[in-house]
Amino acid sequence: MERTRIEALIAELAKKQGSGMYLKDFLLTWEKTDDEIAATFLAADALRALREENVSCRLFDSGLGISLFRDNSTRTRFSYASACNLLGLEVQDLDEGKSQIAHGETVRETANMVSFMADVIGIRDDMYIGKGNTYMREVAEAVEMGHAEGVLEQRPTLVNLQCDIDHPTQSMADMLHLIHHFGGVEKLKGRKIAMTWAYSPSYGKPLSVPQGVIGLMTRFGMEVVLAHPEGYEVMPEVEAVAGKNAERSGGSFERVNSMEEAFAGADIVYPKSWAPFAAMEKRTELYGRGDFDGIKALEKELLAQNAKHTDWECSEELMAGTRGGEALYLHCLPADISGVSCRQGEVAASVFDRYRIPLYKQASYKPYIIAAMILLSKFQDPAAKLKGLLEAGEKRVK
Amino acid sequence: MERTRIEALIAELAKKQGSGMYLKDFLLTWEKTDDEIAATFLAADALRALREENVSCRLFDSGLGISLFRDNSTRTRFSYASACNLLGLEVQDLDEGKSQIAHGETVRETANMVSFMADVIGIRDDMYIGKGNTYMREVAEAVEMGHAEGVLEQRPTLVNLQCDIDHPTQSMADMLHLIHHFGGVEKLKGRKIAMTWAYSPSYGKPLSVPQGVIGLMTRFGMEVVLAHPEGYEVMPEVEAVAGKNAERSGGSFERVNSMEEAFAGADIVYPKSWAPFAAMEKRTELYGRGDFDGIKALEKELLAQNAKHTDWECSEELMAGTRGGEALYLHCLPADISGVSCRQGEVAASVFDRYRIPLYKQASYKPYIIAAMILLSKFQDPAAKLKGLLEAGEKRVK
Amino acid sequence: MERTRIEALIAELAKKQGSGMYLKDFLLTWEKTDDEIAATFLAADALRALREENVSCRLFDSGLGISLFRDNSTRTRFSYASACNLLGLEVQDLDEGKSQIAHGETVRETANMVSFMADVIGIRDDMYIGKGNTYMREVAEAVEMGHAEGVLEQRPTLVNLQCDIDHPTQSMADMLHLIHHFGGVEKLKGRKIAMTWAYSPSYGKPLSVPQGVIGLMTRFGMEVVLAHPEGYEVMPEVEAVAGKNAERSGGSFERVNSMEEAFAGADIVYPKSWAPFAAMEKRTELYGRGDFDGIKALEKELLAQNAKHTDWECSEELMAGTRGGEALYLHCLPADISGVSCRQGEVAASVFDRYRIPLYKQASYKPYIIAAMILLSKFQDPAAKLKGLLEAGEKRVK
Repeated sequence: MERTRIEALIAELAKKQGSGMYLKDFLLTWEKTDDEIAATFLAADALRALREENVSCRLFDSGLGISLFRDNSTRTRFSYASACNLLGLEVQDLDEGKSQIAHGETVRETANMVSFMADVIGIRDDMYIGKGNTYMREVAEAVEMGHAEGVLEQRPTLVNLQCDIDHPTQSMADMLHLIHHFGGVEKLKGRKIAMTWAYSPSYGKPLSVPQGVIGLMTRFGMEVVLAHPEGYEVMPEVEAVAGKNAERSGGSFERVNSMEEAFAGADIVYPKSWAPFAAMEKRTELYGRGDFDGIKALEKELLAQNAKHTDWECSEELMAGTRGGEALYLHCLPADISGVSCRQGEVAASVFDRYRIPLYKQASYKPYIIAAMILLSKFQDPAAKLKGLLEAGEKRVK
Repeated sequence: MERTRIEALIAELAKKQGSGMYLKDFLLTWEKTDDEIAATFLAADALRALREENVSCRLFDSGLGISLFRDNSTRTRFSYASACNLLGLEVQDLDEGKSQIAHGETVRETANMVSFMADVIGIRDDMYIGKGNTYMREVAEAVEMGHAEGVLEQRPTLVNLQCDIDHPTQSMADMLHLIHHFGGVEKLKGRKIAMTWAYSPSYGKPLSVPQGVIGLMTRFGMEVVLAHPEGYEVMPEVEAVAGKNAERSGGSFERVNSMEEAFAGADIVYPKSWAPFAAMEKRTELYGRGDFDGIKALEKELLAQNAKHTDWECSEELMAGTRGGEALYLHCLPADISGVSCRQGEVAASVFDRYRIPLYKQASYKPYIIAAMILLSKFQDPAAKLKGLLEAGEKRVK
Repeated sequence: MERTRIEALIAELAKKQGSGMYLKDFLLTWEKTDDEIAATFLAADALRALREENVSCRLFDSGLGISLFRDNSTRTRFSYASACNLLGLEVQDLDEGKSQIAHGETVRETANMVSFMADVIGIRDDMYIGKGNTYMREVAEAVEMGHAEGVLEQRPTLVNLQCDIDHPTQSMADMLHLIHHFGGVEKLKGRKIAMTWAYSPSYGKPLSVPQGVIGLMTRFGMEVVLAHPEGYEVMPEVEAVAGKNAERSGGSFERVNSMEEAFAGADIVYPKSWAPFAAMEKRTELYGRGDFDGIKALEKELLAQNAKHTDWECSEELMAGTRGGEALYLHCLPADISGVSCRQGEVAASVFDRYRIPLYKQASYKPYIIAAMILLSKFQDPAAKLKGLLEAGEKRVK
């Protein structure tokens, strides 16, 4: 039975995979076509099904997956390491120290020096507006050149593990969770999702989560509402992407300044704190100037600004206003839970507790999404490779 | 010849392995039955014999072994990494930072978030009385629930790499060393082992070594003597376990306050420093209150208290008082060697030097004990799996 | 076609490999015979050809490669990790903390404690004259004894990843690059290579690069010229080795105090900064005494001394004086590039840029050189093993 399901997934993948992902990096979801996004979901589902059937997914007998974290992370490190290990790649961490601002020559050289036997490079660089995604592209360009110049035997492909603009592994995992929860992509058409700001006692949380969500989830015909207090705008370019997506997919995208309005009748809610884009830009400038006093002052401002909106909490009352009072609550974790992780936070403890299991399941898709991104970027016919794994039937656990 | 020996070990293992270790954590040796302890020794011996015959012991084609060290460690890290690597698991380290006090929600969430593709979790948390073993149980409970809730595809099992109460991998390795040294478990009956305190210029060494030793070695009909100056009591609960074990196994357990008395006529001596239980409890409280001045003051007290007992050194004189003057000297390493690593220490240099090779051999059992614990917790019929490895005969080194 | 080439390399390797490298450490190139050096180049080429043909080079199904870095490194870490991964070994890092001065007992014990399941140990210890290579030999001796004493089941072999005397993986990679660039070892006979000092705004760069180069490249009948300002002498013992090598190989070795003179008519130039040997010795003494003020004062002296020779830059003018103005420019990277990484440095930006691709290719040999060193030290008949890999034809990437 399970074998049939896997075969069906692989057959679907074969139709969607196209040729546009091979040796290409996964940097922003809106750089991928609808088929490529669909292929990634199918590959993730197929890999998961194979693993659940104890079929080994090792497509590499050796090879490195470089990890480069310019910001601390436990979960993303584990998701990336899990994905690499599943496919047979060994993670080698590049510990750069504190150098945040890329120097042209150094980036190109370092990228090539570590990539001689690397098949994939996972980078997280989300702290400074205008820097992270840019840096990833520099690295990608460096190894593209290195491969073309005969310096590298293979073209390592990049996976964006979170940048200043997008958080593809997160939004894609969230989306796959929704697809499974509601029983299919078609079941999402017309559903309302509220991507809202929420109060947090810590400042400076990245914008890439709300941006990633509106940048991806507007592609499925949903009614996507972005809500936040005034002053908490996200990048206008990403809002533009969201608007165009919504139009193309027959859904909608709007921005409101009321958490209530966003939650009203919603099928899905995603209340999550973030720092204002303009403030994050300012912080990048201050950092670039080495103005640490300025950064401290800015942080105080941001905390004070946040404190004006402590009412932006995902409460039982707000949840009651969703469709049937039963909207699916999403969070990328960890959440600031009122009374548990902090006095006042993003969500009431009783709400969080009620959704604990679905929240953990939401997170469980991430390693598979990353593995799917790697698979699709490293093989010309990924479906054939998965078919091969199924037929070989090597056991993951003997 | 060697193949016959391996087959015999596997056959013995099949009789002892039972069904009680599958998907169970190894947290305290006294939570395991006599057969389960015996099965662990047999599995360790079988794995060692297989490796010595260059037979690959990889039972996992992929999978992670999470390592979580809340205290520095080189040897234990290497033992755990060696064991995981032997079986085919890749170690992924969870670097928590400095958070010692577990927050309910955070522990459950973190444990699940890192475990999506983890088969085993090795934890070392031995610095704070009442915290370490408790934390391990929280993690175990978290992943047990996660597995039951369908969040985790597999139930990662825990291996205790040292807690505040027990140090199972150490005591089990020590025991296996004794079994091999004396030529069999039956040869240990009636033998006297002196687990004694010894002077060390550093304070705060964990109690889990003496506690682990008396908690395990009283199960084999030996005359176990725990010796220490007054004021250096270990946990009364563990002494109670030791007493009951001794009764059941036809051996004995007593506590004395004289190193001489303990060493007199002993077959085995294990002189090792530790901090008083009561002092370690106080240190935990001070730490919980963030009273770092209090901790510094307590440390000074402990050093002063230690300094009253510099005569508790494993000297040639004391060794001469053992049975035939030839008792086997044990240490978990590293030892404080008088005149070598410190002015005055736990053992005289000439004694330590004489036993160097057996000491290294004692240590060599640890990676195999850990691998055995993993094996027995992850497979319902471990003997069958080892048989399969032997028959497949894949080479570890081509 | 490619298969034929690989078979030819393997056949050549079979003739050169001898029996002298099995279970021997690679600490200094001048401790290896001409055939052993040739075998290492052939093995590196064969491994590279196999990997390029997508043939898996995994000769280990499990096993650890210990890495011990007593000095920071990104490139060498990656080269070593790449080499280990290629062969099937998993890297386990030994993080020692800050202890630089080896204590006899501790070295022997630690080396054995971490080596129970280790097949190779890679060490980088280059900061203190008289310490690094010495430490490596202590570790080698410790595991040699451990293996002989039955403590270790296998004899882990050492690879010198840079010490105070030599940098074998670098000089061997550089040499293999020259062999490929000029079309064969015989094509190097009579060619002039200028190993010159160059100005750098940072002090204290290791001498092991120039020493490694003159210690190896004098074996091939080349005209080797070592050039530096007075006061920047390298170790006299290594100059003696270079002189003897040159005599034996029919080449020459001389030392001059003029960068121009060295560059004139050269086929190959290698301008690279280093600290004076005598100053590095003094720094070791100061460090041994814990005289950090003394170290700071010495550093200031060195920077001032360097600053007198800012004209020692690899300029376009100097390059124009080489043979045909087209000498091959070498650097171990990263280079101090004038106007790019610093105001004034080792090399003009236009020169560096022109040679960027060959420089990256020079670096690309290092992982293969390390893998070759490991291969030759762990197998009695390495050629047979490579032949086996070729015939099995397991794919590295499925």
